[in-house]
Amino acid sequence: MLGAQGRAVHQCDRGWAPVFLDREQSISLMSVGFLLEKPDEAVVWRGPKKNALIKQFVSDVAWGELDYLVVDTPPGTSDEHMATIEALRPYQPLGALVVTTPQAVSVGDVRRELTFCRKTGLRVMGIVENMSGFTCPHCAECTSVFSRGGGEELAQLAGVPFLGSVPLDPALMRTLEEGHHFIQEFPGSPAFAALTSIAQKILDATPACLP
Amino acid sequence: MLGAQGRAVHQCDRGWAPVFLDREQSISLMSVGFLLEKPDEAVVWRGPKKNALIKQFVSDVAWGELDYLVVDTPPGTSDEHMATIEALRPYQPLGALVVTTPQAVSVGDVRRELTFCRKTGLRVMGIVENMSGFTCPHCAECTSVFSRGGGEELAQLAGVPFLGSVPLDPALMRTLEEGHHFIQEFPGSPAFAALTSIAQKILDATPACLP
Repeated sequence: MLGAQGRAVHQCDRGWAPVFLDREQSISLMSVGFLLEKPDEAVVWRGPKKNALIKQFVSDVAWGELDYLVVDTPPGTSDEHMATIEALRPYQPLGALVVTTPQAVSVGDVRRELTFCRKTGLRVMGIVENMSGFTCPHCAECTSVFSRGGGEELAQLAGVPFLGSVPLDPALMRTLEEGHHFIQEFPGSPAFAALTSIAQKILDATPACLP
Repeated sequence: MLGAQGRAVHQCDRGWAPVFLDREQSISLMSVGFLLEKPDEAVVWRGPKKNALIKQFVSDVAWGELDYLVVDTPPGTSDEHMATIEALRPYQPLGALVVTTPQAVSVGDVRRELTFCRKTGLRVMGIVENMSGFTCPHCAECTSVFSRGGGEELAQLAGVPFLGSVPLDPALMRTLEEGHHFIQEFPGSPAFAALTSIAQKILDATPACLP
């Protein structure tokens, strides 16, 4: 998605150097994908090995000064999530951004994520609904592909902010697949407007720790 | 999705009695969801505890005589997948049915699943592509919401059967959400035709062990 496939991590004197996306080194990445020899290699790891790597990604990477550290986790409430929370606790994480799709099955999973956050003392910054309807590029009619409003209802129920809905957007999918720059190519797309508004709400609520 | 929420598992003299969907007891279910006291309870379990429960689901449930046992796993190649394969190995599982969505990010994950199957000696019965395009109910034009053909390309690359594509179908989503019977209500829907064809290919390739 970020055009970083095939890049590798190097050792520097302060630890692992992350992969930089741009010359200004304004976005740095770390992923188990950078450590694999072949892109289709399976990471057949049990919990303890995953937990150890997650700790290393926090402590052994030469992150330098960061405004924000974003950790993208799989769905669930298992080893990865516990290890991430434990590794980041000394740095007082701002909170969890919880993403759901509109249908009841997904909302049910996310209710359990919210319980997990409460149990582990992680603040929930808000809920985002993804895949919220599809605007047909042929007739401009919008259809709820899944159902509608599950994310907002859940946010009300749980008493956390609802940050917005991101529609299914073929232009976004295509630019991600082809490695183009979505923001430059489709500044008028509905997904871009939705994502910008969500990002702004998060920035407003969580000021970066700038020096 | 199966209208079994809120049902509970009972102890019988041969072990745990699964949850039956119909009076004829032709479909029986087991899920960690049936063991939770509250539906939003988080299953904050590390690998070893999950592995133990997966083994119990195979050995301690009074399954009776089954034609097919279907295990729906999360994506990935971790504890759940290893525990499932280990628990089922004595029963010589027919194989893995691998589901992907069309976009490159998902296809990349699934390549790693295929490597995992090869490493663990599990036959791959075939690949199914889900969320393959959306037919607008307003103008009947079909749009590739994600990209197109990723599943079929992957099957060719891996030398395994491609079993078919299932389109995004709002009728299927709605019946799942509302607990209606999709097959009875929408026998003409494109998703139903696709799912029937895939099921038939699997049945043809893997005869049930009938008494």
